[in-house]
Amino acid sequence: MQASELQTRFEKIRSNKLFETFVISVIVISALLVGAKTFAMPPTFVSVTLVLDWLISAFFLIELTIRFLGEPRKRYFFSNFWNWFDSLIVMISLIPADNADLAVIARLVRVFRVLRMISIIPELRLLLISLVKAMPQLGYVMLLMFIIFYIYAAIGSTLFEAINPELWGDITISLLTLFRVMTFEDWTDVMYETMEVYPLSWVYYLTFIFFTAFAFLNMVIGIVVNVMEQENAKSRQAEAAENSEPTLQDIMTEIQSLKTQLAQRNSRE
Amino acid sequence: MQASELQTRFEKIRSNKLFETFVISVIVISALLVGAKTFAMPPTFVSVTLVLDWLISAFFLIELTIRFLGEPRKRYFFSNFWNWFDSLIVMISLIPADNADLAVIARLVRVFRVLRMISIIPELRLLLISLVKAMPQLGYVMLLMFIIFYIYAAIGSTLFEAINPELWGDITISLLTLFRVMTFEDWTDVMYETMEVYPLSWVYYLTFIFFTAFAFLNMVIGIVVNVMEQENAKSRQAEAAENSEPTLQDIMTEIQSLKTQLAQRNSRE
Amino acid sequence: MQASELQTRFEKIRSNKLFETFVISVIVISALLVGAKTFAMPPTFVSVTLVLDWLISAFFLIELTIRFLGEPRKRYFFSNFWNWFDSLIVMISLIPADNADLAVIARLVRVFRVLRMISIIPELRLLLISLVKAMPQLGYVMLLMFIIFYIYAAIGSTLFEAINPELWGDITISLLTLFRVMTFEDWTDVMYETMEVYPLSWVYYLTFIFFTAFAFLNMVIGIVVNVMEQENAKSRQAEAAENSEPTLQDIMTEIQSLKTQLAQRNSRE
Amino acid sequence: MQASELQTRFEKIRSNKLFETFVISVIVISALLVGAKTFAMPPTFVSVTLVLDWLISAFFLIELTIRFLGEPRKRYFFSNFWNWFDSLIVMISLIPADNADLAVIARLVRVFRVLRMISIIPELRLLLISLVKAMPQLGYVMLLMFIIFYIYAAIGSTLFEAINPELWGDITISLLTLFRVMTFEDWTDVMYETMEVYPLSWVYYLTFIFFTAFAFLNMVIGIVVNVMEQENAKSRQAEAAENSEPTLQDIMTEIQSLKTQLAQRNSRE
Repeated sequence: MQASELQTRFEKIRSNKLFETFVISVIVISALLVGAKTFAMPPTFVSVTLVLDWLISAFFLIELTIRFLGEPRKRYFFSNFWNWFDSLIVMISLIPADNADLAVIARLVRVFRVLRMISIIPELRLLLISLVKAMPQLGYVMLLMFIIFYIYAAIGSTLFEAINPELWGDITISLLTLFRVMTFEDWTDVMYETMEVYPLSWVYYLTFIFFTAFAFLNMVIGIVVNVMEQENAKSRQAEAAENSEPTLQDIMTEIQSLKTQLAQRNSRE
Repeated sequence: MQASELQTRFEKIRSNKLFETFVISVIVISALLVGAKTFAMPPTFVSVTLVLDWLISAFFLIELTIRFLGEPRKRYFFSNFWNWFDSLIVMISLIPADNADLAVIARLVRVFRVLRMISIIPELRLLLISLVKAMPQLGYVMLLMFIIFYIYAAIGSTLFEAINPELWGDITISLLTLFRVMTFEDWTDVMYETMEVYPLSWVYYLTFIFFTAFAFLNMVIGIVVNVMEQENAKSRQAEAAENSEPTLQDIMTEIQSLKTQLAQRNSRE
Repeated sequence: MQASELQTRFEKIRSNKLFETFVISVIVISALLVGAKTFAMPPTFVSVTLVLDWLISAFFLIELTIRFLGEPRKRYFFSNFWNWFDSLIVMISLIPADNADLAVIARLVRVFRVLRMISIIPELRLLLISLVKAMPQLGYVMLLMFIIFYIYAAIGSTLFEAINPELWGDITISLLTLFRVMTFEDWTDVMYETMEVYPLSWVYYLTFIFFTAFAFLNMVIGIVVNVMEQENAKSRQAEAAENSEPTLQDIMTEIQSLKTQLAQRNSRE
Repeated sequence: MQASELQTRFEKIRSNKLFETFVISVIVISALLVGAKTFAMPPTFVSVTLVLDWLISAFFLIELTIRFLGEPRKRYFFSNFWNWFDSLIVMISLIPADNADLAVIARLVRVFRVLRMISIIPELRLLLISLVKAMPQLGYVMLLMFIIFYIYAAIGSTLFEAINPELWGDITISLLTLFRVMTFEDWTDVMYETMEVYPLSWVYYLTFIFFTAFAFLNMVIGIVVNVMEQENAKSRQAEAAENSEPTLQDIMTEIQSLKTQLAQRNSRE
């Protein structure tokens, strides 16, 4: 049997609908296994899960090998982000974990096998890509928000450190406290505490809430505008495609040729 | 009296405006009755409600029978979702409830008679249908969200179980705790508790909040885009309908026929 | 001096910019007075506020009279909602309040004089009108939401009354508790309490949150669609107004007349 | 070396990419320094930060001087908002702070140097400008919201002052409490407390939440409409620019000239 023959066979398996369904089922089982392990289990079941774990790891390794061998252009395989993603997840979950410390890490690593769900379902892949695409657009708003947070955190940890070091101890703790204030989580408790020392400190909290709300509003508007522009562009393209109709320019040309024709006749006579 | 005659009469009743108003009133009374029973009542009133309950059940049964008999094509009756919906609610509320355990269930079942409000008011039916239609569109975002939840719940119950088994005992409890964190409900209490053991566990909560916020944002954008596309399509259709105007193609054809005419004359001369 | 002359003079005062500014100032002073009274004040200041109060009431009465006398068509005066609104506020604040019980009511009634700000600033009037216009559009979503609330409140007060009568005592208290759950206000405390008796009661809260969230989403989409439709209609009208350009139909007519002209010549020769 | 020569040189430095990167780095370092000072530090490090602080102040002063000298038209320099902004921040952070009280203020003032990030990154400047532009548009909604807040605060402090002076003591405290209610922060605790005295006071809170929610909704709709109008205007302009195509009017003119030509021939023959 030739290598190319083997490759064609693997390619067939790879694009087989049944094979895909089977892979998804294994991912779901692997996810359920991860969930099951968080419950208290009898020792028999524990050994069963151990065996199952290794079977799943082995299956994923085989599946990945089939995918790789089934790829006609090997270079292309590694230029695809999702292949790297899958390989990484499979490789990491192969790391043996004997002693107790590593056992927890190995268990955690196996959780990420659920992420393979995203790489195997095209719609989820699309969602993730559109999320990543929205990132740079949000980048500057995030930076502005961070600057607001940073300035308020610096002020907060300077003024309020003596009042409650657990909330305002240093700038990182203050950043966390401000994030809490932004989510409105018991923010009045934080405020009332500082208002006992600085009665005007409500200004600090209210301006912070207003600024972050404005930055957030800005972000939402930005996204809506962006989405609308894309939609308008799309709808204009669709219109243009629909109109295989002659353009006004075409008609103008026709009329002008008509005029020339008539003018030639006039001069001929 | 013939069967068909009876049917015509029932059909008339069914589409009678007064009859409809009366049915809505009975539904409202049945809803008020359900509400009234949650208050402490004198025994006389209790027996009154029992009688009223049976009267309403009987009325609903009669109404449904009229609707069924008034339907010219009996098959069509059962192909309508709302008829199934009504029949189910009426049938269930007919179940007798003698002993105490069933009494609570019977009382609960009667609550759902309020849902008949939706099946009888067309605008509400429309709202519900548009809600159901939006479902598949939201399906994949929900799946993505569930994957995020599942991975974080698995990590949470692995790392934090020892800290607070009431919040992180197993994966289902952890899912509930994460839902709570997503609604920002006392999420800092949950976080501060785990930060005492793992000081870096704020990363876990903040990334979780960011990921779910992003997935949510994605969902909102998706819905807005979808709504806009439908609107644009509608407005383009409306425009096309308005324009019974000749198309540019028609004008082109005319000009070309004009040219031929002129060319023929030229050659004739 | 004739009545008509007086009227013209009042009409001039009414539309005077300076007069308007003065009225707004008096409203602001009346608002500040209301605010000032909530602070502990020395007795002298209290008598000052009493005098000021009566002066403001008198001024408002005079202003209203000027407005009425300055109106050329008296009938039109009462067909304007805002005139009724102003008259009502002014009349009510004239009620004398001698004994202690009425004093509180009189004080509260005077608060509503701040509402005159809305009737005097056109932009605020516009905002309020657009709010009222949005009402019927939201009506059915509100009804759907109320049905969801009612059913859940009936179930809640049936099942959970024994657990905590302060939260689930009867259907009205349950409705309030559910509103609290919808705002995510300490909703987990409510849930954990009932989960001790019914471990599956989280289903009740989560489905409730999902249903209300969906109804809310529906409302937002409805509003966006509505706004977009209005905008599209406006932009199409604007386009049509811009285009005093000839329509395609006009051009078609011209070309056809040209063809007839040519045909006539052909036949003549 | 002439003054103009010096100016050209400074202008070159100013627009140098490397110089800009260096300035950004200094701003970042200044920000990190501000953050570092919130941690407990050994005395050696404290003196290092003092030196660094003065170095940064000096650098900013030099940079500003270069910018000013590099500006060809000196008048233009002060007509730019961002130059005023930068100058103010630099000037203020030069104020010496010897005694303890001023030390805190000096430290706080230096925090604002982080704001120079906004003036130096064009994208952030744009964000801030678009935020400021949105302000007047939101002004009237804010005023309406404030009127709602004010009326409810006046009612609240009149009725509930005796119940809890810490929450309803005077109108300013009541405004803060109402802001808290609007953010849903433990608003039920506030409500349950007043419901013990006035069992119907839930009406007060629920109507307040509804009114503010409606005002907020109004604001969002206003913004969406505004953004859409701008987008539609833009897209129509883009369309017009694309269409260097002849207009229908041009074609009409051409056809009419054709007709005249033909008519002239007809009359000539």
